[in-house]
Amino acid sequence: MVEAAVGLFVRHGVNGTSLQMLADEIGVTKAAVYYHFQNKEDLIEAVVTPQLRRLATVVEAAEKQRRRADQVDTVLLGIIDLLIDNRDLLFAFQFDPAIRRHMETRPDMLDLAQRVGMLLSGPDPHLHTLMIGLVTSHGLVSAAASPFLAHLDDAELRHGLYAIARRILRIKTPVPAAQHRIPASPAES
Amino acid sequence: MVEAAVGLFVRHGVNGTSLQMLADEIGVTKAAVYYHFQNKEDLIEAVVTPQLRRLATVVEAAEKQRRRADQVDTVLLGIIDLLIDNRDLLFAFQFDPAIRRHMETRPDMLDLAQRVGMLLSGPDPHLHTLMIGLVTSHGLVSAAASPFLAHLDDAELRHGLYAIARRILRIKTPVPAAQHRIPASPAES
Repeated sequence: MVEAAVGLFVRHGVNGTSLQMLADEIGVTKAAVYYHFQNKEDLIEAVVTPQLRRLATVVEAAEKQRRRADQVDTVLLGIIDLLIDNRDLLFAFQFDPAIRRHMETRPDMLDLAQRVGMLLSGPDPHLHTLMIGLVTSHGLVSAAASPFLAHLDDAELRHGLYAIARRILRIKTPVPAAQHRIPASPAES
Repeated sequence: MVEAAVGLFVRHGVNGTSLQMLADEIGVTKAAVYYHFQNKEDLIEAVVTPQLRRLATVVEAAEKQRRRADQVDTVLLGIIDLLIDNRDLLFAFQFDPAIRRHMETRPDMLDLAQRVGMLLSGPDPHLHTLMIGLVTSHGLVSAAASPFLAHLDDAELRHGLYAIARRILRIKTPVPAAQHRIPASPAES
């Protein structure tokens, strides 16, 4: 049911999707949908939660690294993979006020955003370092959803975003030979 | 009337503002408002147009520079000033779908976006250079509207954004001594 909701969000936007449309899409009654989701907010929560769990996995893996360089690489590659695996959804989410409200009021999202900032900027960052982390993370999300880059395949976009993030953060070590992906959590339903 | 509309957009969001509210705000009848604006879209256009005129002035001034470094500095400083003079409005605009639709369908906006890209990335950019320009421009807009930086005063935010943009673009020349501002166009009404 969550996968069907993702498909509707991608095709019609969050605002253009109703619980009735979800019932029609999967061929059940509206009552069956209401059994799981009382309203649109519940549906948004169900779609966002698995992505935040995946982000939490990335952040935890990065925090376990002992070297600063490995912390930054792990969080960058994990976030870029997360963005790339959700290019369509990202586009639907990026400008939606309901998604924004949902994200801004979720304590787990605020906690993860702060931990990503700490990983990118280091502990006790100066204002300048904090701003660099903000520009990097916002820039990656916007670029991944940019119509100007929609023609790139996933590998090209991944490579480009990673190279640019390292450039902004002034990471001079060579690109790791094995950029192993952190596997996505099994789909929730 | 446009200034009153800007104030309503800032306080209530674009979606939360109606023509009736504009009439109440300036103490005229709804008919008087309708004389100028048929609908919300007209109101958005009236608010956005002076900002795009100012962006056009910045882009033209940058294009007239003969040295590449001066072109980049002129467009960066002009855009950063434009963002900083509209911090409140930017916050109201950033996630609004009506604003996004309006921007995406305005030929003058598309033209200006391409010219800013050319100024930042140079003519015939490689993909990597194009992506750097995109991350820079999106990153500046998002950072200027970030709640994490809302406590900075205008001068601090301006200095920080300019330093970071130069860092991303790898500009190594010293910061120009006189960062003279390109004056905003006189307010439209």
